Amino acid sequence: MKIDGRPYRTIWLAADGHTVEVIDQTRLPHAFEIRTLRTLDDTVAAIRDMIVRGAPLIGATAGYGMALAMAADPSDTMLARAYERLMATRPTAVNLRWALDDLRRLLMPLPVDQRANAAYARADEICAADVAICASIGRHGLPLIEAAARRKKAGGRINVLTHCNAGWLATVDWGTALAPVYMAHDHGLDLHVWVDETRPRNQGASLTAFELGKHGVPHTVIADNTGGHLMQHGMVDLCIVGTDRTSRRGDVGNKIGTYLKALAARDNGVPFYAAVPSPSIDWTLDDGMRDIPIEERDGAEVSRITGRLPNGEIASVELVPKGTPVANYGFDVTPARLMSGLITERGVCEASAAGLLSLFPEHAWAA
Amino acid sequence: MKIDGRPYRTIWLAADGHTVEVIDQTRLPHAFEIRTLRTLDDTVAAIRDMIVRGAPLIGATAGYGMALAMAADPSDTMLARAYERLMATRPTAVNLRWALDDLRRLLMPLPVDQRANAAYARADEICAADVAICASIGRHGLPLIEAAARRKKAGGRINVLTHCNAGWLATVDWGTALAPVYMAHDHGLDLHVWVDETRPRNQGASLTAFELGKHGVPHTVIADNTGGHLMQHGMVDLCIVGTDRTSRRGDVGNKIGTYLKALAARDNGVPFYAAVPSPSIDWTLDDGMRDIPIEERDGAEVSRITGRLPNGEIASVELVPKGTPVANYGFDVTPARLMSGLITERGVCEASAAGLLSLFPEHAWAA
Repeated sequence: MKIDGRPYRTIWLAADGHTVEVIDQTRLPHAFEIRTLRTLDDTVAAIRDMIVRGAPLIGATAGYGMALAMAADPSDTMLARAYERLMATRPTAVNLRWALDDLRRLLMPLPVDQRANAAYARADEICAADVAICASIGRHGLPLIEAAARRKKAGGRINVLTHCNAGWLATVDWGTALAPVYMAHDHGLDLHVWVDETRPRNQGASLTAFELGKHGVPHTVIADNTGGHLMQHGMVDLCIVGTDRTSRRGDVGNKIGTYLKALAARDNGVPFYAAVPSPSIDWTLDDGMRDIPIEERDGAEVSRITGRLPNGEIASVELVPKGTPVANYGFDVTPARLMSGLITERGVCEASAAGLLSLFPEHAWAA
Repeated sequence: MKIDGRPYRTIWLAADGHTVEVIDQTRLPHAFEIRTLRTLDDTVAAIRDMIVRGAPLIGATAGYGMALAMAADPSDTMLARAYERLMATRPTAVNLRWALDDLRRLLMPLPVDQRANAAYARADEICAADVAICASIGRHGLPLIEAAARRKKAGGRINVLTHCNAGWLATVDWGTALAPVYMAHDHGLDLHVWVDETRPRNQGASLTAFELGKHGVPHTVIADNTGGHLMQHGMVDLCIVGTDRTSRRGDVGNKIGTYLKALAARDNGVPFYAAVPSPSIDWTLDDGMRDIPIEERDGAEVSRITGRLPNGEIASVELVPKGTPVANYGFDVTPARLMSGLITERGVCEASAAGLLSLFPEHAWAA
């Protein structure tokens, strides 16, 4: 998608064909800065410190991390070490495991002198596949927005609510939850997005607002507490969220607070969809609430917040009394029963094992 | 309750017997400062700018505002003007209307030279009545916490979740939702409070954390998005929230986000109570969702947040990209069907017209 008229992806190979460049998402929306990843360490830090975030983008970054590691030292020892260090960066995102397993499977049998090239090629493919998946989710999700428009008696603007950032900044391009939104907007639908600010890290207020604004999609930032009230009063026509990890029966592990919005949607008859790229599906998990591990992050993300001072400087302020205990659960799991459906790159299905298997029959082994 | 060992109320008559002093709640938790209210204008500003907040404290402050106005000019014109200006400060809190109607009814028939004294006396009474109401809510709510303790099979700590600040800082003393918590703690129950930070104004992270900390009640601040996850995992035994305005059938207008927590409580079988001082009941309203007006506040409360810089200075930082549209609904309405019960100063009742009338039969005219 575009920033100030220039097309960008979130991650790309630099002109030297070796180092990797990413948009530093910890600096958005206050500054637009590119970071260069030169080593495995850089890549581990970029994922851990959320310079890159969003399950698909994490997977792509991990792919390049393996490539950078192999370029430095293609030994079996380094392969194992890179795999382990990258795997330890973020426990929830299944794309991370998926990409790393894929790379390891590819690289292990290869002679060491072929590993770096093969890893770069595969990382490039992971990126291309992600773009294709997101564009396809956009095409399959678009009719849901068009249907919401038709249901609206008086015509008028369609209001979509989204949580966190599952836009193009969370992927390589297009986004997952926002891909249908961008397509609807580009098709001329009169559409407006309610953007949950998404405490504690405020990915909605910073990233989603940033990318929608740059693309020209009308939107309004709200506190996370607000969605229920809006739904009670008919001000939301459709919810679309992303997912970090989806169980085979369609439970959706996503940013903390997603479950609360899904409850409000059900209570008010508002359709609630998750955009589910297939790499986010963990076919080995059934009961998402029991089995999807929930990352507990640093409490400072809750007790402190970063923003722009009146003089333009970026600063963090402390929000709680000194010494206050704080807890920070990064994700929650929305049970399949609360989902109107899942938007995958192969189409929209019921949030159930049967629904997912109807689109991905090759995973019937998991049943 | 106590601050650094010294007992305080949130509002009191100064030693001169004329001016009124309040704790400046916009400075908490970073600084503890007393403000002196000398005029009607001071009082209007104190309520409007949330130097004082919380429905009961707003009512008490409005009472003293009328007294300050009458002390300056006891004419009918001023009486009408003070009533109107104070009424316009905050549209949602029913205590405001209740206190102002009460004062006007009292003062209108009086000779002008008696109005100031009568107004002060009535404002004092409003404060005393509020303290009595809150203490009584505490006594009636305590058995609910004790019951939750008994239900806990393995014994262990009782986890109470609360939203916003319905503690003693929201009232004259004790608090509403927190009165049972303080009593349970003082009775030696092993109790811990999950404190929703309560965006956008963060009254939980700042005020509730401050007052619980000063009183020594174990607590943890969480992002507003977190409660559902905690309830899914058995980490909340009981929710108690406050109310700004309650309809006669028991719909509860409270800080935005309350409704989302009530949905999660119902979905997980967690008891969910509102602490309802009777002045917050608007007997003229039936359907709270239709009839309780929801205050839309300045979007800057969402786009900006105030905290403590590393150097100790208090500063506001901007959280959204420049020019981002923001909406700020201050309250939502939780329908009575989601409430396990209402804790009033006369006892606990079902959230229904029948339930409330069983405790307040003198309002049967409203049926």
